[in-house]
Amino acid sequence: MEYRRIKDLQDKAGEEVHSHNNDEESLRGSKSDSISTGSGELSKWKRKSIVTLALTVLTSSQAILIVWSKRAGKYEYSVTTANFLVEALKCAFSLAALARIWRNEGVTDDNRLSTTLDEVSVYPIPAALYLIKNLLQYYIFAYVDAPGYQILKNFNIISTGVLYRIILKKKLSEIQWAAFVLLCAGCTTAQLNPSSDHVLQTPFQGWLMAIVMALLSGFAGVYTEAIIKKRPSRNINVQNFWLYVFGMVFNAIAILVQDFDAVANKGFFHGYSLITVLMILNHALSGIAVSMVMKYADNIVKVYATSVAMLLTAIVSVFLFGFHLSLAFFLGSIVVSVSVYLHSVGKVQRQQ
Amino acid sequence: MEYRRIKDLQDKAGEEVHSHNNDEESLRGSKSDSISTGSGELSKWKRKSIVTLALTVLTSSQAILIVWSKRAGKYEYSVTTANFLVEALKCAFSLAALARIWRNEGVTDDNRLSTTLDEVSVYPIPAALYLIKNLLQYYIFAYVDAPGYQILKNFNIISTGVLYRIILKKKLSEIQWAAFVLLCAGCTTAQLNPSSDHVLQTPFQGWLMAIVMALLSGFAGVYTEAIIKKRPSRNINVQNFWLYVFGMVFNAIAILVQDFDAVANKGFFHGYSLITVLMILNHALSGIAVSMVMKYADNIVKVYATSVAMLLTAIVSVFLFGFHLSLAFFLGSIVVSVSVYLHSVGKVQRQQ
Repeated sequence: MEYRRIKDLQDKAGEEVHSHNNDEESLRGSKSDSISTGSGELSKWKRKSIVTLALTVLTSSQAILIVWSKRAGKYEYSVTTANFLVEALKCAFSLAALARIWRNEGVTDDNRLSTTLDEVSVYPIPAALYLIKNLLQYYIFAYVDAPGYQILKNFNIISTGVLYRIILKKKLSEIQWAAFVLLCAGCTTAQLNPSSDHVLQTPFQGWLMAIVMALLSGFAGVYTEAIIKKRPSRNINVQNFWLYVFGMVFNAIAILVQDFDAVANKGFFHGYSLITVLMILNHALSGIAVSMVMKYADNIVKVYATSVAMLLTAIVSVFLFGFHLSLAFFLGSIVVSVSVYLHSVGKVQRQQ
Repeated sequence: MEYRRIKDLQDKAGEEVHSHNNDEESLRGSKSDSISTGSGELSKWKRKSIVTLALTVLTSSQAILIVWSKRAGKYEYSVTTANFLVEALKCAFSLAALARIWRNEGVTDDNRLSTTLDEVSVYPIPAALYLIKNLLQYYIFAYVDAPGYQILKNFNIISTGVLYRIILKKKLSEIQWAAFVLLCAGCTTAQLNPSSDHVLQTPFQGWLMAIVMALLSGFAGVYTEAIIKKRPSRNINVQNFWLYVFGMVFNAIAILVQDFDAVANKGFFHGYSLITVLMILNHALSGIAVSMVMKYADNIVKVYATSVAMLLTAIVSVFLFGFHLSLAFFLGSIVVSVSVYLHSVGKVQRQQ
């Protein structure tokens, strides 16, 4: 039933896009164009590249901040309050961006905050999915160590590709599918270490959480793309605002359910440190970057960006934490690089 | 100067092939046709598949026999005598095959043993190269352990691809090059083990021998293909006979130079065991299989066959030696499988 509904969104989106003859259409078009022509296309290609680059940098620093913040082994601060603040911060950023737009361009149908029940009704769903996934993201460490988690996280790649195909009905060429399998194998290879085979002994709960998280994040991502692309001309900051409002609501509920006592006794900001604040800021910014990539690119670009981010994280960790790069890392990086190359080649061929 | 000479061979070969309008031409044609049509093409495709399969099976059993034969840690028998017997056996097999052909078809220009200086003059070169490579193949174990050697051996893949392109002037599509890089990365990944990073500490002699071996085997393979394909209509058994005759000569020299005393004192067959005999038989048969693949397919097919053989060896070793398959092996196997798929896809695209 969800699927049906999203398919409808998509069909509508398609119609709107092809009937619309505005900036946003060529924007959406540029998503699938490999050879951009004209300064218009070029500026869209630039925008797409900038948001993708931003996502890559933010994601790689995110992983590093997580390692730092949990150096004590446990989280001293309440995770739910942190997640709430992330959503609140994203809301604030969206409103700030809108305020500037209203001042410059005035209020239009596309950038007004007021909305219809029809438009807003679907926004809670990804917020709910992301909430569950975010909570799991912290608790899975009870069953899997960080390297093991990194390896299991690669299920996301496959789940996103499959759900992207099923839900958004977008075609990938044979070579792009091959590239996607390679991306998953390459990322996993790059994260291999002498103790990696332990991951095969991950307890059942660990496997289950990893698979559920992969499906949740895959579905949430694809569903968000469907919502954002349903109204191509709608300002992204308005769409983000409504996404994040529901994010705040769901995280508020999580605080009440999970951490009410802790927060009531120790206070909302108990255990917060500079690193916690940086982490919240980073999560907020990367969350916005994800929305931008959904609007101006798609989930496949998102997956490639976050995968390359993994490799960057490892390279940065060499300097920060004295990690050493293994033969496996080099081999995995080669496979990922070839995968990126094949994805672009496959795109060209799909269009011929 | 060698290169130039081979290029000439190749050009001549090309002309001959295209002027010839006989069975052998369509045979050579079938090498590059991906979609075979007609029962003639089909039977050639079958022949190509059979020799490729034979090479795969023989190569995988070869690795296992080597492990067995050196279980004592050292070779009790003289390596040079073993190599000599391998060449002699291949000669005998070729003559036996020819005898049958003469009985059935009578002696023709294509299957007569007598030859011209022009034809025979190039046959010693691969024999010499193979000799050096075979000797190194046993002695490199002094510097690298078996897993390390398996990893370094993957240089062969790159060297063969590059020399195939340079010497035979055969084109590979972009995707086939990508597939080739993946084949090398995938094979290496599949052979990773907790101690693989030691290979990065291989002594200089080890690296040098590995690279020299890669270039020797790559060049010998490509040069042999050039010789065999120079005269498409010439019977493969005659071509093999002359290749192996020079193999016998060079190995006889090796015996005199290296093991003369040992052979004179202890006797030619000192230290031979059943496993030694099986190894010699296996080397002889896989040597013939290689020639057949050169004649009816090419060096690229040879590399893919031997790479898949590596994976088969590992799987068989699980049962024979109780090896356990690592996460890395599964990841590498996935990458190799995708590589094989991309190679065939790339072939189709090259022909469009």
